[in-house]
Amino acid sequence: MSHTLRTIQEDGDAVVILDQTRLPHETAFVILRGLEDAAHAIRVMQVRGAPLIGATAAYGVALALQEGCGLDEALTTLGATRPTAVNLHWALARMRRILEKSAPAARRETAWNEARAIAGEDEVANAAIGQYGLPLLAEIATRKGGVNVMTHCNAGWLATVANGTALAPIYAAQAAGLDIHVWVSETRPRNQGHLTAWELGQAGIPHTLIADNAAGLLMMQGKVDCVIVGADRIAANGDTANKIGTYLKALAAREHGVPFYVAAPVSTIDFACPSGAHIPIEERAGAELGAAVAKLDTAVANPAFDVTPAGLISGVITEYGVHAPTSLASLTCAA
Amino acid sequence: MSHTLRTIQEDGDAVVILDQTRLPHETAFVILRGLEDAAHAIRVMQVRGAPLIGATAAYGVALALQEGCGLDEALTTLGATRPTAVNLHWALARMRRILEKSAPAARRETAWNEARAIAGEDEVANAAIGQYGLPLLAEIATRKGGVNVMTHCNAGWLATVANGTALAPIYAAQAAGLDIHVWVSETRPRNQGHLTAWELGQAGIPHTLIADNAAGLLMMQGKVDCVIVGADRIAANGDTANKIGTYLKALAAREHGVPFYVAAPVSTIDFACPSGAHIPIEERAGAELGAAVAKLDTAVANPAFDVTPAGLISGVITEYGVHAPTSLASLTCAA
Repeated sequence: MSHTLRTIQEDGDAVVILDQTRLPHETAFVILRGLEDAAHAIRVMQVRGAPLIGATAAYGVALALQEGCGLDEALTTLGATRPTAVNLHWALARMRRILEKSAPAARRETAWNEARAIAGEDEVANAAIGQYGLPLLAEIATRKGGVNVMTHCNAGWLATVANGTALAPIYAAQAAGLDIHVWVSETRPRNQGHLTAWELGQAGIPHTLIADNAAGLLMMQGKVDCVIVGADRIAANGDTANKIGTYLKALAAREHGVPFYVAAPVSTIDFACPSGAHIPIEERAGAELGAAVAKLDTAVANPAFDVTPAGLISGVITEYGVHAPTSLASLTCAA
Repeated sequence: MSHTLRTIQEDGDAVVILDQTRLPHETAFVILRGLEDAAHAIRVMQVRGAPLIGATAAYGVALALQEGCGLDEALTTLGATRPTAVNLHWALARMRRILEKSAPAARRETAWNEARAIAGEDEVANAAIGQYGLPLLAEIATRKGGVNVMTHCNAGWLATVANGTALAPIYAAQAAGLDIHVWVSETRPRNQGHLTAWELGQAGIPHTLIADNAAGLLMMQGKVDCVIVGADRIAANGDTANKIGTYLKALAAREHGVPFYVAAPVSTIDFACPSGAHIPIEERAGAELGAAVAKLDTAVANPAFDVTPAGLISGVITEYGVHAPTSLASLTCAA
């Protein structure tokens, strides 16, 4: 399996996804046939990663109309699945705009076409992110003879329709023949780092898995040249919500002069959101911390995201280039 | 079971420990009858926590002499079990000093007496740490109506002979009737946070378990008033090695103006070690990250400790008081 696999595909009048709750130990596909299938897949994280959540929601609207649901019901149900990743709301708003203009008889076909466009654009955008991120890694590799990148969570092809966001420059670096090694944080509580390790293993990219706790020591020891993470929502001022634990890595990166990049398509920027303080942080079930914790019968807090202030971010890599986090406004016309 | 239980006790000519690899889900005791039993218990972390490692090593010397081993063999074997916690070497050096002066016929008894003294002093020292730490918490509780403390790993009575180090002020705060709540990090990869949650649960102290990754968000949200951690080795300049992940919490604490305290007996200060850069960091088996990781067949790095620079530490709480991390030299006479 190469890293060019698509995570979501059409199959007749259904949509097929990879069940990411069973990866990397089992490769299982799930067929989405209607609205509730799509909403469930997002809610329980069979699909995850902001761009893929957006594409799945778009297809969810198409599936909903196909089974006779109203547009409002579809948008409301899908919009309530997860609160933080803005690509979900971006995709639903885009579906609403085009469908409200569409003649009733053409709506179903329009919905399929628009979902297909959203998915296709994500694939292209992420390939561009890879190309814009590549020179950042190449510069380090040239200077040091190789480059050690740290990432967090999974922002690879599994988190997108294809190509990945944070991992796109890493795949591009491999294709360009750079000597690259990736530090992969396990990313508690859901261990999405295992997905990243699996992705990189499939691609033959050298990598080392670590406990999230090890990030500070490795930076102190000079073993990290650069951090690249994905994003679930970027506020207009550049503050970035991403998987819980990202912020701690950003603080350590600043402390040790390690460049810290966020890689995301423009669909992840929420221009209506003035700052990180306005981003809702999803609180998920404590059971995600595992069976041993459940047996402890103890209170658990499980926020799924944190916010990295713009001041800690060296650059935001989008499909249009590398931007200072404070100058994202120039991208509004692209959104 | 109250929090006053002792983790290590004599039983005739043997020593009994709680097997901490089976806690908190199972309470099992292990009987140490000789040198290899004691060395094994430290190596595989049946006992853990710097002060308890020191006491176990001291008893290990007594057990070794009792079974006819030479002193040098005992000191070498026990000294090689774990590299970072300095209490191990402190206890062994103390045993060597007194035993080298002891008449051969009295050596066995001297060894038992000295091990007993080391264990007893740890219990008393930690109770004093609790009393010196209490006013720090009381001041916050008075000002805010309650106090939210974050800790890392387990530095409770399980990590010591009794009373705990980082948790000692928390137990003292409960006894003083303060309104206290503790944020408990799970502490990957070995989840010693489960031990802390269990300890606090036994004592009836309100607490909430979190993924290590959540620490930064909680501080950003103003939900943490103070951090208290233990230590495995404090260099003469105040740099502090403690469980991996401590450093990330210290960086976040500074960022948000949250006081960050290290609680440890003077036996944890290595006056011969000039700075954190000289502290050996134990690398443990990658298998500690769990069975799911093992199945991934991926490279794993698993450093067990990191170093928090003195500049991030608000104070070091010892059995003699609360000290600026840069003025530990005044304690050399107590060591």
